[in-house]
Amino acid sequence: MNDFNFFSPTEIVFGKKREHESGSLIKRHGGSKVLIVYGKGSAVKSGLIDRVKLSLEQAGIPYFLLGGVEPNPKDDLIYKGIDICKAEGVDFLYAVGGGSAIDSAKAVAIGACYDGDFWDFYGTGKPVEKALPVGVILTIAAAGSEASGSSVVTKKEGLLKRDVSSNLIKPKFAILNPQLTCTLPAYQTACGATDIMAHILERYISNTSDVQTSDRICEGLLLSMVEEVPKVIANPEDYQARANIMWAGTLAHNGIAGEGRAQDWNSHRIEHELSGLYDCAHGAGLAVVMPAWMKHVYKRNVPLFVRFATRVFGCTEDKEHPNKTAEEGIACFRKFLTSIGMPETMEELGGREEDIPLLVEKLGLNHGKTGGFVALSEADITEILTSTLEKNVRK
Amino acid sequence: MNDFNFFSPTEIVFGKKREHESGSLIKRHGGSKVLIVYGKGSAVKSGLIDRVKLSLEQAGIPYFLLGGVEPNPKDDLIYKGIDICKAEGVDFLYAVGGGSAIDSAKAVAIGACYDGDFWDFYGTGKPVEKALPVGVILTIAAAGSEASGSSVVTKKEGLLKRDVSSNLIKPKFAILNPQLTCTLPAYQTACGATDIMAHILERYISNTSDVQTSDRICEGLLLSMVEEVPKVIANPEDYQARANIMWAGTLAHNGIAGEGRAQDWNSHRIEHELSGLYDCAHGAGLAVVMPAWMKHVYKRNVPLFVRFATRVFGCTEDKEHPNKTAEEGIACFRKFLTSIGMPETMEELGGREEDIPLLVEKLGLNHGKTGGFVALSEADITEILTSTLEKNVRK
Repeated sequence: MNDFNFFSPTEIVFGKKREHESGSLIKRHGGSKVLIVYGKGSAVKSGLIDRVKLSLEQAGIPYFLLGGVEPNPKDDLIYKGIDICKAEGVDFLYAVGGGSAIDSAKAVAIGACYDGDFWDFYGTGKPVEKALPVGVILTIAAAGSEASGSSVVTKKEGLLKRDVSSNLIKPKFAILNPQLTCTLPAYQTACGATDIMAHILERYISNTSDVQTSDRICEGLLLSMVEEVPKVIANPEDYQARANIMWAGTLAHNGIAGEGRAQDWNSHRIEHELSGLYDCAHGAGLAVVMPAWMKHVYKRNVPLFVRFATRVFGCTEDKEHPNKTAEEGIACFRKFLTSIGMPETMEELGGREEDIPLLVEKLGLNHGKTGGFVALSEADITEILTSTLEKNVRK
Repeated sequence: MNDFNFFSPTEIVFGKKREHESGSLIKRHGGSKVLIVYGKGSAVKSGLIDRVKLSLEQAGIPYFLLGGVEPNPKDDLIYKGIDICKAEGVDFLYAVGGGSAIDSAKAVAIGACYDGDFWDFYGTGKPVEKALPVGVILTIAAAGSEASGSSVVTKKEGLLKRDVSSNLIKPKFAILNPQLTCTLPAYQTACGATDIMAHILERYISNTSDVQTSDRICEGLLLSMVEEVPKVIANPEDYQARANIMWAGTLAHNGIAGEGRAQDWNSHRIEHELSGLYDCAHGAGLAVVMPAWMKHVYKRNVPLFVRFATRVFGCTEDKEHPNKTAEEGIACFRKFLTSIGMPETMEELGGREEDIPLLVEKLGLNHGKTGGFVALSEADITEILTSTLEKNVRK
């Protein structure tokens, strides 16, 4: 086990109708003038934003609105948010939505306390020194941003999707009401579930040995996802399954599943280029990339993939042919993803074979922060992406 | 799943030699004058206290010492600590040791900010309104107090062992260096391991349904304990196994394993009376009480105990006779405990049959805060304790 620091200070406020506590929670966490950051559709249509406004009004907290955050959120709206914060003296960011709203709010929180361009911190490793506090109402179980210190946004110019990580942008509190996710379409639900499983797997697939406690947590979270996700695909209003997935989604990314181990994150890195270029859903991109990546790298630690196959998917271990068991586990994972409606090929994401060199080139700028399991060369990435082309998947 | 709030703000600083960071961590968490609270023996003999003093001196932080905390810590030393804090303007408590040192430091932290008697908060439910910040260097994996909001201490007069719970006494940081536990005798190690497993089981054994994510976390932590504890009993200096147990011990009690479910805690409640009266080790007391309690209550939720038997101890499910599988799981748990050197009978703890009425009577004062799985009557408790007598265990 490697040395580590674990710090997850976000207060999780979990359960039905908890969004009504918005005003009192913001007050308790020191907010007195709020910018509410939210998306385009459902948060408004469902009346959630109205409920939030009411809660803030009842608590006597003035607020400004920044709606219209898009999936794969772009920098232009963030600049707008920063301007509002600076002009109006906003002291608290309140994200209502999924990863895009939360990551945008975090970016605004950083930019509002900085004289230069907030983009200076993205993809550069420049440490954040100050940020406004952020609170969250989560409306989709997916990104795990509600209790993480990371934010991923896309610069419109060049379609660069980059991230920043800092304890200072870990949300002060996150309201998790599983009811809010019961109206999500199956495709979005499945994309979110894939993202959650990928967050666990980016940690689980590691060369660090003797991390049994962490292994068992990762496997436990994966087992719960394998059990619960099909329930909500079959019955979107299954509150209990929604609740289990939502809680697993937070634990998948608040750090607890990955402490003490070298992590990989190359699948995320590759996917960020896909969704940066094609604007596809992040989870769908991961469903295409991750099994392909697994097949490319599993021989570097066959016993780990055998464990994954037997413990998570209940495969029977073939002691004579461990590679076979390992491959069976990867096949089970892919089959699970397609069973919940996820794509298998790059083309389904809008991808084209001729873009592969461009994707690989853009990846090269990522400062090698990823690849704790296997460092990938440009040739590796080319091979992984090529293996996701329809002609190779279906062959 | 029940609604819940989860809040675990303690920064975990995990790994070799991390105690050298004491000074800088205390500074970062706002401490400028410190009371170091520690036990009687090993922390001094091992040179740990000297290393801590050095780290504080190098950081220019003045400190006072409060040594001599005993297992099942008593109120007299706590009053002494409170006096020092008030007289000297101490603003940070630093516990170096196990649950006893940490729980004493938490009690001092409460008392130092209160005009009345700190005991007012213990066992009464009176909410804590203010407390000094607490930091921890953990020297035994056991109590989980390093990241919990609870403190258990014993009032010498009447030997009342009572607890308090508050977010305000959750430690600011906890240094977990598994090396510090490598010199622990096997008996203490096993007592600590039993306490950890009991913390998980008090949460796991619940009537709340549809808590799969939490179930899987509990089972994962238990599986890791079953795998790792025998390793350190066989080889006390197995750093990796020590590390896995230490991390499991924190996660067993920082809240994460029990969110969303009704919890029980009657085994702890019964044990507190045993260690309050006989001054036995808490873990040893739990090893006697918990399997006896399980046998008494398992019929209230046989499928849960079947799951425990099959998932944690790998028992084969007997679908025709689920009670048999459930009992087999309890027998495996008891066998595991004796295999690591834990007692089975009340007499081994110093207990006597004729004290049972007194134990039951003292328990009656506990305001019914426990028993989320099964509420126990006085007759139940009498029966459970009676079943732990040698004549009944060995029959």
